Amino acid sequence: MDLSRSGKESGDIAIPVREVAKSSKSGKGIAPPPAASTIRLGQQPPPAAGWRRGVGIIDLILRICAITATLAAAAVMGTTDQNLPFFTQFFQFQASYDDFPTFTFFLAGNAITCAYLVLSLPFSIVCIVRPHVIGARMLLLIFDTLALALTISAASAAAAIVYLAHNGNPGTNWPALCQQFNEFCPRVSGAVVGSFLAVLILVVLVILSAAALRRI
Amino acid sequence: MDLSRSGKESGDIAIPVREVAKSSKSGKGIAPPPAASTIRLGQQPPPAAGWRRGVGIIDLILRICAITATLAAAAVMGTTDQNLPFFTQFFQFQASYDDFPTFTFFLAGNAITCAYLVLSLPFSIVCIVRPHVIGARMLLLIFDTLALALTISAASAAAAIVYLAHNGNPGTNWPALCQQFNEFCPRVSGAVVGSFLAVLILVVLVILSAAALRRI
Repeated sequence: MDLSRSGKESGDIAIPVREVAKSSKSGKGIAPPPAASTIRLGQQPPPAAGWRRGVGIIDLILRICAITATLAAAAVMGTTDQNLPFFTQFFQFQASYDDFPTFTFFLAGNAITCAYLVLSLPFSIVCIVRPHVIGARMLLLIFDTLALALTISAASAAAAIVYLAHNGNPGTNWPALCQQFNEFCPRVSGAVVGSFLAVLILVVLVILSAAALRRI
Repeated sequence: MDLSRSGKESGDIAIPVREVAKSSKSGKGIAPPPAASTIRLGQQPPPAAGWRRGVGIIDLILRICAITATLAAAAVMGTTDQNLPFFTQFFQFQASYDDFPTFTFFLAGNAITCAYLVLSLPFSIVCIVRPHVIGARMLLLIFDTLALALTISAASAAAAIVYLAHNGNPGTNWPALCQQFNEFCPRVSGAVVGSFLAVLILVVLVILSAAALRRI
């Protein structure tokens, strides 16, 4: 590891220098073996450092986008609360995310993913600065996969309930809500869309991490 | 340039260099690379073939388990159909998966994942027979991630509806169903559990594939 690194940094540059000096002394002109050894030593250690660094930068940008998306989804869901302007003696018509356990799960799932993504930023930066550190990349891949699972789970469950709120289910006597709660429904739908956007980004992140881990 | 630094960091890099220089002085033309450096360079290609093969075998077994789980989930959901023994003049009380769009999605999602997993078996076998074929492993990782996303999406959406069927949602006037449909509900819940089992296996598969791709 160390060997190859130092070879990459400066060892292979030293070879042609010394060699050229000697060969010119003996007057033999061009010597093929040093060139071959330079290529061989130079080839392996930095196979795709630049490419990996590029992947790392894309990773960082996508991560920030995913943070925005999950934060927005959680914030919109958490602040959605609509009271209808009429009420009966016993009951005020009110819709808030915490009337639905699924929406509470949605909020928690997105908040956890957002917090994880913020905490993962330093690791992502490590992957840019040191493209050969495999451990950080592997860690990111594993936790990105788990975050992906959590986020898509929260988003799909919320989507199922949003669908029900929009359309109802006549077979089971579940009425649609969105005629009455005309402010609640679009906000909740927007939150779900934001969360699915984060899911899309996380899928790309997992595949990018795998590509960066790939041994070339 | 940085001669002193490279010499300090790894003195043994200098050995092949000197040797190459000598052989070229003797006028032999292309010199075979020194044994030591050959071994060091040659170490990289077959680092963990046995380990990768082991991962491949675990991958195959887990894949078969996931096929069973998704197939069972889809089959149980597809065959669940309960008619209640009483009916009114206009309406027979009946519950079937296709009364719920979410359950239809669940069935489709699990069936697609099951079909994909069956089609992926040959690739998994290729990864056992030829542990160095990175392309097949990479392909499996990408499609496993997508299958994971699809399956957990289907399972979570169905779980949200199953929860609603069990508990209802008094705030929105959605009554619970499971008191009446005492046969429908346990079967559907079982299907959701089977699907989540498949999700768990797929998460392990993705992480295993990443570990196998890792450059050691």
